[in-house]
Amino acid sequence: MFLRTLREDPVDAEVMSHKLLVRAGYIRRAAPGVYSWLPLGLAVLTKIERIVREEMNAIGAQEVHFPALLPREPYEASGRWTEYGENLFRLKDRKDADYLLAPTHEEMFTLLVKDLYSSYKDLPVSLYQIQTKYRDEARPRAGLLRGREFIMKDSYSFDVSDEGLDASYEAHRQAYLRIFERLGLEVVPVFATAGAMGGSKSEEFLHPSEAGEDTFVRSAGGYAANVEAVATTVPEPIDFTDAPPCRVVDTPDTPTISSLVEFANAEFPQASRDWTAADTLKNVVLAVTSAEGERQIVVVGMPGNREADLKRIEANIGALLGFAGEPDVEAATDADFAKHPGLVRGYIGPGTSLDSPVLGEKSTTALPYFLDPRVVDGTTWITGANEARKHVIGLVAGRDFAADGYLECATVLAGDPAPDGSGPLEIARGMEMGHIFQLGRKYAEALGLKVLDENGKLVTVTMGSYGIGVSRALAAIAEQGHDEHGLIWPASLAPAQVHVVAAGKQAEILDGAAELAESLEQAGLEVLLDDRPKVSPGVKFGDTELLGMPVIVVVGRAFKDGRVEVKDRRSGERTEVELANVEQAVRQLLVG
Amino acid sequence: MFLRTLREDPVDAEVMSHKLLVRAGYIRRAAPGVYSWLPLGLAVLTKIERIVREEMNAIGAQEVHFPALLPREPYEASGRWTEYGENLFRLKDRKDADYLLAPTHEEMFTLLVKDLYSSYKDLPVSLYQIQTKYRDEARPRAGLLRGREFIMKDSYSFDVSDEGLDASYEAHRQAYLRIFERLGLEVVPVFATAGAMGGSKSEEFLHPSEAGEDTFVRSAGGYAANVEAVATTVPEPIDFTDAPPCRVVDTPDTPTISSLVEFANAEFPQASRDWTAADTLKNVVLAVTSAEGERQIVVVGMPGNREADLKRIEANIGALLGFAGEPDVEAATDADFAKHPGLVRGYIGPGTSLDSPVLGEKSTTALPYFLDPRVVDGTTWITGANEARKHVIGLVAGRDFAADGYLECATVLAGDPAPDGSGPLEIARGMEMGHIFQLGRKYAEALGLKVLDENGKLVTVTMGSYGIGVSRALAAIAEQGHDEHGLIWPASLAPAQVHVVAAGKQAEILDGAAELAESLEQAGLEVLLDDRPKVSPGVKFGDTELLGMPVIVVVGRAFKDGRVEVKDRRSGERTEVELANVEQAVRQLLVG
Repeated sequence: MFLRTLREDPVDAEVMSHKLLVRAGYIRRAAPGVYSWLPLGLAVLTKIERIVREEMNAIGAQEVHFPALLPREPYEASGRWTEYGENLFRLKDRKDADYLLAPTHEEMFTLLVKDLYSSYKDLPVSLYQIQTKYRDEARPRAGLLRGREFIMKDSYSFDVSDEGLDASYEAHRQAYLRIFERLGLEVVPVFATAGAMGGSKSEEFLHPSEAGEDTFVRSAGGYAANVEAVATTVPEPIDFTDAPPCRVVDTPDTPTISSLVEFANAEFPQASRDWTAADTLKNVVLAVTSAEGERQIVVVGMPGNREADLKRIEANIGALLGFAGEPDVEAATDADFAKHPGLVRGYIGPGTSLDSPVLGEKSTTALPYFLDPRVVDGTTWITGANEARKHVIGLVAGRDFAADGYLECATVLAGDPAPDGSGPLEIARGMEMGHIFQLGRKYAEALGLKVLDENGKLVTVTMGSYGIGVSRALAAIAEQGHDEHGLIWPASLAPAQVHVVAAGKQAEILDGAAELAESLEQAGLEVLLDDRPKVSPGVKFGDTELLGMPVIVVVGRAFKDGRVEVKDRRSGERTEVELANVEQAVRQLLVG
Repeated sequence: MFLRTLREDPVDAEVMSHKLLVRAGYIRRAAPGVYSWLPLGLAVLTKIERIVREEMNAIGAQEVHFPALLPREPYEASGRWTEYGENLFRLKDRKDADYLLAPTHEEMFTLLVKDLYSSYKDLPVSLYQIQTKYRDEARPRAGLLRGREFIMKDSYSFDVSDEGLDASYEAHRQAYLRIFERLGLEVVPVFATAGAMGGSKSEEFLHPSEAGEDTFVRSAGGYAANVEAVATTVPEPIDFTDAPPCRVVDTPDTPTISSLVEFANAEFPQASRDWTAADTLKNVVLAVTSAEGERQIVVVGMPGNREADLKRIEANIGALLGFAGEPDVEAATDADFAKHPGLVRGYIGPGTSLDSPVLGEKSTTALPYFLDPRVVDGTTWITGANEARKHVIGLVAGRDFAADGYLECATVLAGDPAPDGSGPLEIARGMEMGHIFQLGRKYAEALGLKVLDENGKLVTVTMGSYGIGVSRALAAIAEQGHDEHGLIWPASLAPAQVHVVAAGKQAEILDGAAELAESLEQAGLEVLLDDRPKVSPGVKFGDTELLGMPVIVVVGRAFKDGRVEVKDRRSGERTEVELANVEQAVRQLLVG
């Protein structure tokens, strides 16, 4: 066995799965975010791939295999050559033609089906591949969890009708749930945004884990969504006919929102209830950069008890600004502020298209101004007066200010209502294990995929796209199944089912272990044998725990009396077993 | 089945395997030299991979999987970042770091073993992968036979001693012969040069085929070599003490070698024998470009009955010029000649470092001058006099001229003696299916792979490298096994063993075919069913021949009487068989 276990964690490892997979000799780093698979890792990967393949075949999807090196033209036609921005690995061949390393293959599958099929009778069809993908991540991290070269199963469905797409989508959804169940990997399907992929309906399969990069919400009533996709529950507008006028006040000593709220309650109390942070309107200046590199400064307003959520903004602001794909969003820099002297930091008021008798012309910044959907007409706010050490109190939305549009821009908070009324949301972290999309007709239109329908009329095909991160799933399974000593694989995925250890240097022990290993192998079990003659039993035991085979058989002192120790890696339970009963004992632990 | 057969050959297809694999829907072109695998093609590929895997595992090689996207540094250390020249796909990541798409992985395997192993006790070890490789070929052609993205099995052996390397090399050699035998692919192992790979001993496994790009030679006595590797049989030097002096003669009417020979025999006959074309010394001016882009003009001299063989020159001239890797060699251009007015086209004499009373100072070109090894001392020649319409007759090698070195520069001709004395050579064409190399210590030295030997002394490891073109093997099998109607797969590699055709539109026929297909499948056979209701039997029969499953079962008119037709694709033989006996009939044809 080509294997060397390490005592030290790799210096760049942040999460346990990464540390353990490297230390146990499953994978090895070749470059940032690029890993080699050593024999043990490849064995687990192959078993995961087999399960994915079986479930894809079971829904009638057919396996194909596309190149990773692709020409620019189809991605130019769909717009993604540009939209992917720096995430795309681009290169030129010796004739100076543009190529890319494919991050996903919508365009190529669309063109393939266009090439081969011309009639509704050929549809529906679902095609898949298990293939190496590339993404030039800005921050590759956590080993296989976010790599730059990784293995994905991607599939694509092609239907004539929307109902057909619904059925193909649902078949994939069910197949994904079965795959994750067979992998023993807990996942929560959550509503998601489509991002650079385009299309309408979309769900992610998140594995709840503190090591995950995605934040999602769920309610006791069964709602679950990626935070990017959570739609704010919009309150009813309020009649503001009798609302008192607003006024600008001096607020020299209110450096924080809580001090501002305290000041307002002391000096300008409301009759109905106290002011809270949720009554302050926080205006945040952001720089939005499109995939083409266009940079736009915008101001977004939200209740002061929430923060600007850059991921939510990235997912939603593109459409408002007319940017294709998902832009980058960051806080405005000092240089940005310098170009817009009307923005008085700490005292930024709402931009407005309404006459504002109070804010006057100071309120007009000429920058796009977007509001959190909670800021409905008739709500009353405390906010900055666009002048240092002054605020406005009692500013009414729809009367004193308005916006260029509503934007899901604010953090989702635990306790917020689920959009479907199924109760308050709780917030959790997860890893994206799969993502399914109803692409609709975006790619088929861009690339001209039409077929003749029953009436001989050309109709544009509607598509779905479905991905599972295969190498990432392996890391997630390792992340979920380990203890402080090492990895713990489920029996169906472990590189071997039994780890036989020769605990001693005597020929009797070494030969006995080899014979036992061979007899277990002949009985149809997958066996890993540790017969290193010069390594101490202690080191070998440590390695059994690090490597994580589900059952460990120790051939030691009791062997001369015809007994060995059988150990369950997960529970740590050990039993002394007669040689004749070893196979049975192993099999019991494997099914348990 | 996602499949559409085509009636037209693809416009870019030159060889039958390419035409048929595309027309039969096995593969699809994505870019020049880059192909997608459709379901049928992927099925064959998977079966080939399984055979390769089994034989590699059988010699104890362990499977791993490396990235295709690799950092520049290791390839810089070995020199191949530059030596590969334009054949290497290079790219930069978002941080402007250099990467490449690996054409082969010597460096990475060397580093991996260096990283994990430190003692002679860990060796020998052989590792392999089946992986997607990249080469930016100048002229991708013939479909899968010479692609830019292709699938290779590459393996690497690591030994402490030369004897160990011999054993690892021989184990691979035998495994390769078994693999090709199981693939039903005729191969000839031939001696080869190491090329850009470096190292000493090397053999190619060539599949004899007119569609091949490699020329090789073989003798009846069992010698076989790539033409690049054929060593000329060097004659004994001749005593030239009594040789008559040479003389410059006017040759106004000798535009060709044969007219020159005729003129010489008429005007200056030799006592012993007639002059022949083999007695003329042809001097050819070539431009040699190193991988780094350095361009050097050289003159090479050879007997006039042979041509300059650029591939042989490329394989051998690098060492003479001190160029690393394999340079490009082409005929000198008009511009090159313009820079060297001493070179009189059509009348170029040998460059010389000897005093030449006849050629005088005109003979000195200051360009490197290399000679074919047949031009031994004492041989007598007719050659150009470095002056228009003048030749020298009776010029003696070693007396009147010499060279800067000997070079294997001339074509090998049928009938030339085998270097090992095993008889005259015949010349054939072949496709390179595999290549095995004794790399020796080149990579281990460049990358510092040393282990402690039995005496605790650090020794450099010696390596072998072994490749099989997996996707190319598929094309070669298709090229070998086809007729004018389509593909003919061996039973062990066909996407399915039986092709069941419903030859008719009647429900009875369609249902009958489906039931028969299912019963054959349940009997453990792999079945492809053509139950397209609106396609004529003639088109379906054509498709069975194009697709090439080994056995075809036709459910047609006789089905109502309980009989179907069973056809052998290769022989075309048809038999009417009772339904109860179909499975048996199919199995007989499969083993036959």
